[in-house]
Amino acid sequence: MARVVVLLSGGMDSATVLAIAGDQGHECYALSFDYGQKHRAELCAAKSIAKQLGAVEHRVITIGMGELGGSALTDASIDVPEPGSEGIPVTYVPARNTVFLSLGLGWAEVLGADAIYAGVNAVDYSGYPDCRPEYIEAFQAMANLATKRTVEGQPLEIRTPLIKLSKAEIVAEGTRLGVDFSITVSCYKADKDGAACGHCDACELRRQGFIDAGVADPTRYQP
Amino acid sequence: MARVVVLLSGGMDSATVLAIAGDQGHECYALSFDYGQKHRAELCAAKSIAKQLGAVEHRVITIGMGELGGSALTDASIDVPEPGSEGIPVTYVPARNTVFLSLGLGWAEVLGADAIYAGVNAVDYSGYPDCRPEYIEAFQAMANLATKRTVEGQPLEIRTPLIKLSKAEIVAEGTRLGVDFSITVSCYKADKDGAACGHCDACELRRQGFIDAGVADPTRYQP
Repeated sequence: MARVVVLLSGGMDSATVLAIAGDQGHECYALSFDYGQKHRAELCAAKSIAKQLGAVEHRVITIGMGELGGSALTDASIDVPEPGSEGIPVTYVPARNTVFLSLGLGWAEVLGADAIYAGVNAVDYSGYPDCRPEYIEAFQAMANLATKRTVEGQPLEIRTPLIKLSKAEIVAEGTRLGVDFSITVSCYKADKDGAACGHCDACELRRQGFIDAGVADPTRYQP
Repeated sequence: MARVVVLLSGGMDSATVLAIAGDQGHECYALSFDYGQKHRAELCAAKSIAKQLGAVEHRVITIGMGELGGSALTDASIDVPEPGSEGIPVTYVPARNTVFLSLGLGWAEVLGADAIYAGVNAVDYSGYPDCRPEYIEAFQAMANLATKRTVEGQPLEIRTPLIKLSKAEIVAEGTRLGVDFSITVSCYKADKDGAACGHCDACELRRQGFIDAGVADPTRYQP
């Protein structure tokens, strides 16, 4: 039974990852980030998910990333767009996964954890550069040189069990492992109670995932 | 004249880096971190240094890293040791440079900056794994895959002009460029006014640097 850090946003992907890590018999330390996101309801969701899926501990680290601006997810002056725009969308938060994985690396080292699990997904994603397999491989190579633990020859593996799954496959896997998707929050415009807008990129991907998986969508939508 | 981000701790190394980047004709955006360090006086020093060396802007990002513990620099239950201990010391903050460079990466992308300057030094350093050239190279490789900017073919270079310099050479270079070392804070046990203990690893390295460079040590020591 190994200790692992699981990055937990409060969305369906990271909830499924936590379920997978737990199912593999790991002692899971869940880590969330209060980084100035507009959809802060995901942090309440993360707390519930961590409890429900038996995480040993759940921490929320504050990062003043919103002060850097540049993303529709953190900058009040940029609206979250309707779906269908080309290229890397304005919901992309510069270097977000790098910052999150880095803090996961720090906690993993303090805990003596063997691995960091992240719900990165390269199939039904939003075109973010830091969700691609080649990015994760490069982060792993950097991590191998970055910490006392790895330099002293102990492993610290970045694991992304969803990276090649479609949204439907994630729904199926989470359902199989008993994830309660009704408490997860994926929407970029979630209200303070976590109800979803139903229209943003994240909502569209999620809704289609349930349809394709043939699983009833338990998402609470805004009236 | 290119925009660049300069990581500025408030110590002598990063002050020298800021002077170098400015001397090269760059528009410097200085970035500091309030990460729960005990020696918070370095943040006041960073503010003064940024102003004195003509940074276009200086931001301080809050990161709740102290909550992760595991380092004498952020954890109240671990004392900053006397110098001379073997191996990687307890002043090592897990994944600190990775976290700092990652946030620098995010800001660089928002600003459209070409480079991130960091005062990493592999010679007279404290044995931290994330100060070595091979670590910086791996971070660069990861950064090339991490951001919208780099994926779209624009450069974002990690520059560490001090990486192969001795502390004495850093003192000489900073002196040549007019850095006022009296306002920089290197000490791990600096008091709230930035006066140095004179005994910790950081103080010893700094003091020896001035001696070896033949430059009068302007450091304010605690009584």
